[in-house]
Amino acid sequence: MLDDNRLFPADAATRAIARELFGSIRHLPIVSPHGHTEPRWYAENAAFPDPAQLLIVPDHYVNRMLVSQGIELSALGVPRRDGGPVETDGRTIWRLFAKHYYLFRGTPSRLWLDTAFEDLFGLTEPLGEKTADAYYDRIAQRLATPEFRPRALFERFNIEVIATTDSATDDLGWHKQIAASGWGGRVVPTYRPDTIVDPDKPGFLGELDKLGEMTGCDTGSWAGYLDAHWERRAYFKQMGATATDHGHPSAQTADLSEADAAALFDIVRGGKADAAQRELFRAQMLTEMARMSVEDGLVMQIHPGSWRDHAPGMFAAHGPNTGFDIPRRTDYVAALKPLLDRYGMDKRLSIILFTLDESTYARELAPLAGVYPALKLGPPWWFFDSPEGMMRFRELATETAGFYNTVGFNDDTRAFPSIPARHDVARRIDCAYLARLVAEHRLRLDEAHEVAIDLAYGLAKKAYRL
Amino acid sequence: MLDDNRLFPADAATRAIARELFGSIRHLPIVSPHGHTEPRWYAENAAFPDPAQLLIVPDHYVNRMLVSQGIELSALGVPRRDGGPVETDGRTIWRLFAKHYYLFRGTPSRLWLDTAFEDLFGLTEPLGEKTADAYYDRIAQRLATPEFRPRALFERFNIEVIATTDSATDDLGWHKQIAASGWGGRVVPTYRPDTIVDPDKPGFLGELDKLGEMTGCDTGSWAGYLDAHWERRAYFKQMGATATDHGHPSAQTADLSEADAAALFDIVRGGKADAAQRELFRAQMLTEMARMSVEDGLVMQIHPGSWRDHAPGMFAAHGPNTGFDIPRRTDYVAALKPLLDRYGMDKRLSIILFTLDESTYARELAPLAGVYPALKLGPPWWFFDSPEGMMRFRELATETAGFYNTVGFNDDTRAFPSIPARHDVARRIDCAYLARLVAEHRLRLDEAHEVAIDLAYGLAKKAYRL
Amino acid sequence: MLDDNRLFPADAATRAIARELFGSIRHLPIVSPHGHTEPRWYAENAAFPDPAQLLIVPDHYVNRMLVSQGIELSALGVPRRDGGPVETDGRTIWRLFAKHYYLFRGTPSRLWLDTAFEDLFGLTEPLGEKTADAYYDRIAQRLATPEFRPRALFERFNIEVIATTDSATDDLGWHKQIAASGWGGRVVPTYRPDTIVDPDKPGFLGELDKLGEMTGCDTGSWAGYLDAHWERRAYFKQMGATATDHGHPSAQTADLSEADAAALFDIVRGGKADAAQRELFRAQMLTEMARMSVEDGLVMQIHPGSWRDHAPGMFAAHGPNTGFDIPRRTDYVAALKPLLDRYGMDKRLSIILFTLDESTYARELAPLAGVYPALKLGPPWWFFDSPEGMMRFRELATETAGFYNTVGFNDDTRAFPSIPARHDVARRIDCAYLARLVAEHRLRLDEAHEVAIDLAYGLAKKAYRL
Repeated sequence: MLDDNRLFPADAATRAIARELFGSIRHLPIVSPHGHTEPRWYAENAAFPDPAQLLIVPDHYVNRMLVSQGIELSALGVPRRDGGPVETDGRTIWRLFAKHYYLFRGTPSRLWLDTAFEDLFGLTEPLGEKTADAYYDRIAQRLATPEFRPRALFERFNIEVIATTDSATDDLGWHKQIAASGWGGRVVPTYRPDTIVDPDKPGFLGELDKLGEMTGCDTGSWAGYLDAHWERRAYFKQMGATATDHGHPSAQTADLSEADAAALFDIVRGGKADAAQRELFRAQMLTEMARMSVEDGLVMQIHPGSWRDHAPGMFAAHGPNTGFDIPRRTDYVAALKPLLDRYGMDKRLSIILFTLDESTYARELAPLAGVYPALKLGPPWWFFDSPEGMMRFRELATETAGFYNTVGFNDDTRAFPSIPARHDVARRIDCAYLARLVAEHRLRLDEAHEVAIDLAYGLAKKAYRL
Repeated sequence: MLDDNRLFPADAATRAIARELFGSIRHLPIVSPHGHTEPRWYAENAAFPDPAQLLIVPDHYVNRMLVSQGIELSALGVPRRDGGPVETDGRTIWRLFAKHYYLFRGTPSRLWLDTAFEDLFGLTEPLGEKTADAYYDRIAQRLATPEFRPRALFERFNIEVIATTDSATDDLGWHKQIAASGWGGRVVPTYRPDTIVDPDKPGFLGELDKLGEMTGCDTGSWAGYLDAHWERRAYFKQMGATATDHGHPSAQTADLSEADAAALFDIVRGGKADAAQRELFRAQMLTEMARMSVEDGLVMQIHPGSWRDHAPGMFAAHGPNTGFDIPRRTDYVAALKPLLDRYGMDKRLSIILFTLDESTYARELAPLAGVYPALKLGPPWWFFDSPEGMMRFRELATETAGFYNTVGFNDDTRAFPSIPARHDVARRIDCAYLARLVAEHRLRLDEAHEVAIDLAYGLAKKAYRL
Repeated sequence: MLDDNRLFPADAATRAIARELFGSIRHLPIVSPHGHTEPRWYAENAAFPDPAQLLIVPDHYVNRMLVSQGIELSALGVPRRDGGPVETDGRTIWRLFAKHYYLFRGTPSRLWLDTAFEDLFGLTEPLGEKTADAYYDRIAQRLATPEFRPRALFERFNIEVIATTDSATDDLGWHKQIAASGWGGRVVPTYRPDTIVDPDKPGFLGELDKLGEMTGCDTGSWAGYLDAHWERRAYFKQMGATATDHGHPSAQTADLSEADAAALFDIVRGGKADAAQRELFRAQMLTEMARMSVEDGLVMQIHPGSWRDHAPGMFAAHGPNTGFDIPRRTDYVAALKPLLDRYGMDKRLSIILFTLDESTYARELAPLAGVYPALKLGPPWWFFDSPEGMMRFRELATETAGFYNTVGFNDDTRAFPSIPARHDVARRIDCAYLARLVAEHRLRLDEAHEVAIDLAYGLAKKAYRL
């Protein structure tokens, strides 16, 4: 199913350049500085469950496409919050998926899945209704072998380091267990404080209580609350973290006076904040996080612009992360200004910006990252982590931001078996882009080789301080 | 003038794939589920008027380009509302057009016109000042023959079915006449209630009166007004309609309580609604139309985002549809939420979304249609019904929405002779896009063949329930 | 370093067409209707200063990229407003630049610089740390020769006419000196009244006083203020100006009554205008400028949408134009309506629109320029004056606006040695675009030749009335 020239430009001369570039980077180690794999996997090193539970049930890209064509999440085995019945038979779910696999034509999910099917499971006939059972059996059989346990795959995938994403109130127990196990794989946590900085998160006030208990700080006061952040950040850092991550509805920042911030915290802490105050608190907290990053050196990631849980009925039935998060128009130029006015020129700070609004690449993000030392551009995110999306990013951002204000690739996935496929797609597309520059005599071949290595490996290590 | 490889990629290998794909679909019947041809043409089957009256005077794409270069609408024969003098000599208008034909270089109008000139009228010398008269004579001569009457062209074009767009208060007399004539061509109406749901339309209140008279319903009350919609929809459906169409300034929807909706109707009916209330009424009516569609199965089309009649002086002089409608930024994610919260997961409902704001394809429309069962994406509309526009649509929407949340092509035209040319362009571009996917090993050739047929034929029939 | 096929498509057949088209236009004279070279250069015809002072210190594209990677503006020799110390040694600055030249990979600056290095200074080894001194010496040596004085370069560059951009209160002394010198080079001023129409400009009120003194008009009253504009415009026109230029934060226009405008002027003149009133005054002044252009025939340029001096700390330290201007989302359809309602159909008026928001090309700008006789589209501006940016412009605008509602190329630069390189890039990209149209049989080769000449030469002369 996989052609070795896949994703390279059709033009023969350009393709030859792309192949040459790719040849020198395809086997570089994987650096995965942002993603959502479970530290528990590496800690316990248990066999993965059946093919459907591994590849379909938790994959919101897969779920959403099937739902769009009238398939119920329950039929895909996605749990209900009320504990109501959902399909639990892996083979039944797999058959349903296989029957509708044609829906994924032209999508990145198709590329990732086919690559995993062939490279990892040795499947070479296309997936469809007729081959569904053979696929299921082969995958199930391999998942049961020691070679397909998480640590073995980690090593087979040639992962040099992988970052997980962890709540600020997570005790990092699995990370401790990994460290204690003597296993050589490098798995580092990432400080994600959304549940303690976003008053709109369910259970926010309880999280602040828990934060107080964990740290011994008085999270009833602004000063104590900030102290608790310092504590947790230091702990995450001690456990290997090099970065924080912030998933906010917008990129809004603020730079309140100490007194105003403390007063706002009191309102928020009392559960009395209105929508504008909740937004202002999130905004202020981005600036506070930047201030702390200046001190402790944790790289800051901002992932704004997703309208989470757009369909309330689906959220009520199945909870978050089932495919109903929708991008919105996002402003950066005004939104980031308060933070940038304070810290934008500080060379100790590194903020990696992501977007779900591609119209900002050339208009806002590249011009900002192309001048502020504190800003870098994250790779194409989520819906844009795709061949066309990656190509647009390079075409839209490079002329203003160059390559060296970008940070390499993030696989950003919890679909562990797809990690090599995702890096493979990114490396191929970057080589395709560089090949075009070389073919059009906009870049020398020797430079393209250097850039290809940086995009595949060097920039991620450097930008994330790994 | 027409090369058989037109619109295919230049790369030889990719072009060969595109040719192969196109070869298997180029002669498929035309399904035209949305457009603006006149039912009267098929009913009366009279000869079309002179070349200028057919091809220039009513074509707002042609008018606007000539106007932009300083030519008066009057000189193009576009009637004045005050009955003032305009050019009426077809040959004079044609010569003016021919002299400025170079302005259309690089535009889709040029492609459509050249295709019609060569394929339909057998003209093979480029149109220009010197060939203007020869063109005029040839076209005029052919239009006078029986083979160029509407029904003969309909059959020659291999149109399987065509939908017209008809005011909700139209009596569908021409459609009745077509049905009664025994002619086998399938021409179906579409329910377009803009004049009775948009308080900003001229004559809105009079239209409500007329609606009351037509249906015997009390359009002075909310309940009677809704009953009248039910009546008219049933009548349109009985006459063959499978769809409704809604041209609103924005995509705003609302979900008012019964009482609030009725109270709003009273204000609107009394002619006292302010701008916000008029917008709210349109918004509520989209949700009401969705509710009715759930019941009666009419597919719903939403065409938002055009600032109609941007130049008041030109509207005063020549009325609507002369090229002065301008796109605006359009939001879908927030705007559609009230409707989607109510009906978005209902599999009985099918809403086809259009846009004049391409920045929404990847950011909003594909993510929405890629998860809500009730949503599908219409083809590139109006200014984007063009080679580059179609290619952007595929590149921006496919990775998230796939092919099967799109609905094939709409020619959306009242320029009857251009219909085959428009479908030809769409089919070629879709084959060019698919050929690239095949050449880059992102899709197998056998799959591309299936998709090509679906895009050219199958999806339109299925999506519009034709 | 320079391949003669640079920027042409890789596909051999398409490249051959592009080469053929380019061959017929590459040596056409340069028409430079908008830019920022100093009239003083042509007046004094003194040798340019050292390589760093010429090529690095004043180039905000170069500055911003280096700053983004942590280099200080002071180290680049950019003066401080407080007169504090900055690097003054040209060779030291040059070495710093050369060491970081890899940062410019993939950017237009790299193309412009390499072209100037090779074509103008005969340098063929790539610039880098090792070649820095050799570069510096060669460039310094050539700059000292008579062949590299401004007038000699002007002639060598085959510049037919160049426009400078001059404050409305500039006495045009250098222009007078050029005229008096008997030199044959055509250098014309452009009327840029930002400092006297934008109340947010530093020193605005003082500028109005100065304007009064220069013209003898009473700039304390609305009538006198308008008279002063008339005076200055007439003077600029007498000195050769054919155009005005307006750099506003937005494209907002207004059409106030005479009395309201006079009242607003009084508030603004009194220094009491709030932000909304200042915006309204700028908006009204665009319409006033249009009114005057209708009378005196000066072509009007609008450059909206830049957030100037986004970083207040950098503005305080180094002043404007050091790379900290950031684009913003820009609206045209609503913003221009007051002006268009008044003058949009007037064939005497020609307004050239620019944008830093590419999402408006297809959605707003092409539809507007494709119908209003008073509107034309300027070439891709600033961050988009680049290969990808120019190609996107053609792909996004041509299908709706055609070629003849665009105005050819602007180099828009104060980097005098880069002028031929910039026109070279634009001509190559236009030929690449045209070649694709020809290769895809969307345009005949004979037409492409005509269009290529128009884009490179004819349209600029016509649109700017040069």
